[in-house]
Amino acid sequence: MNVEFINPFIASLINVLETMAQTKLQPGKPKKKADEVARGDVSGLIGMVGPQVKGSFSISFDESLALEIMHRMLGEKPAKIDAEVTDMVGEITNMVTGGAKLELAKKGYDFDMATPIVVSGRQHTITHKVDGPKIVLPFTNEAGNASLEICFDKV
Amino acid sequence: MNVEFINPFIASLINVLETMAQTKLQPGKPKKKADEVARGDVSGLIGMVGPQVKGSFSISFDESLALEIMHRMLGEKPAKIDAEVTDMVGEITNMVTGGAKLELAKKGYDFDMATPIVVSGRQHTITHKVDGPKIVLPFTNEAGNASLEICFDKV
Repeated sequence: MNVEFINPFIASLINVLETMAQTKLQPGKPKKKADEVARGDVSGLIGMVGPQVKGSFSISFDESLALEIMHRMLGEKPAKIDAEVTDMVGEITNMVTGGAKLELAKKGYDFDMATPIVVSGRQHTITHKVDGPKIVLPFTNEAGNASLEICFDKV
Repeated sequence: MNVEFINPFIASLINVLETMAQTKLQPGKPKKKADEVARGDVSGLIGMVGPQVKGSFSISFDESLALEIMHRMLGEKPAKIDAEVTDMVGEITNMVTGGAKLELAKKGYDFDMATPIVVSGRQHTITHKVDGPKIVLPFTNEAGNASLEICFDKV
């Protein structure tokens, strides 16, 4: 998979969280190994389909980080992951993918986004099923960890 | 959401599991309430994008039922959900959506499928984030429960 596909998602995630929630995430080392999985307590996922590519994107958060983002974004901090937190994670997923879509369209890669899905459950794992390579990129923040995973199949 | 959209997914799920794994699922009562969530130990999810519709589909299985399907499909029964089980759930997700896609194309509803994503984690919940209505349909089997969720946005 081309790094051209990855960077717009990373930049968009960092931008969305800084702009909407004054939250800085520190990217770690990307992992390419096939058996790496993204892990978190709440995750947003979205499918993408275009003429040249199809794939999927996910962003997983530790509960502590998701609650801190909620606190910074909306001024309230629920005690645990509730419907408002999953709504927020769905919105973040939409915004991050939408931002990357704009950047990739400029480079000639067009795709449409499906509707987002949010998964909630302690330390669940996410596995993207594609033939091609996939990237897991960990992020850290004083409030907890996040994990971005993205993969594309050539169509 | 039109029942025309739902029935092909239900029929395809029942057909795929009967054909591939000699497993019969008994459909329960569909739930339309906005706060219903699909729950399971392993789930397959897929996004769909077409000119008239976009949406997402998920199928969640109890661990016991996923392992029994694995046993019937491949003759081996792992002790817990491992990479082979998540591969199988990804394949089932692809086959069920592919079967429904063929039926819906005959009715004039075309969509493309994104790549499947598999979520693993005890009793996680799945929430599809769309503006429109969504359907959660429970299934039972002597080995455990499954839960199909589907929703479409008009585009």
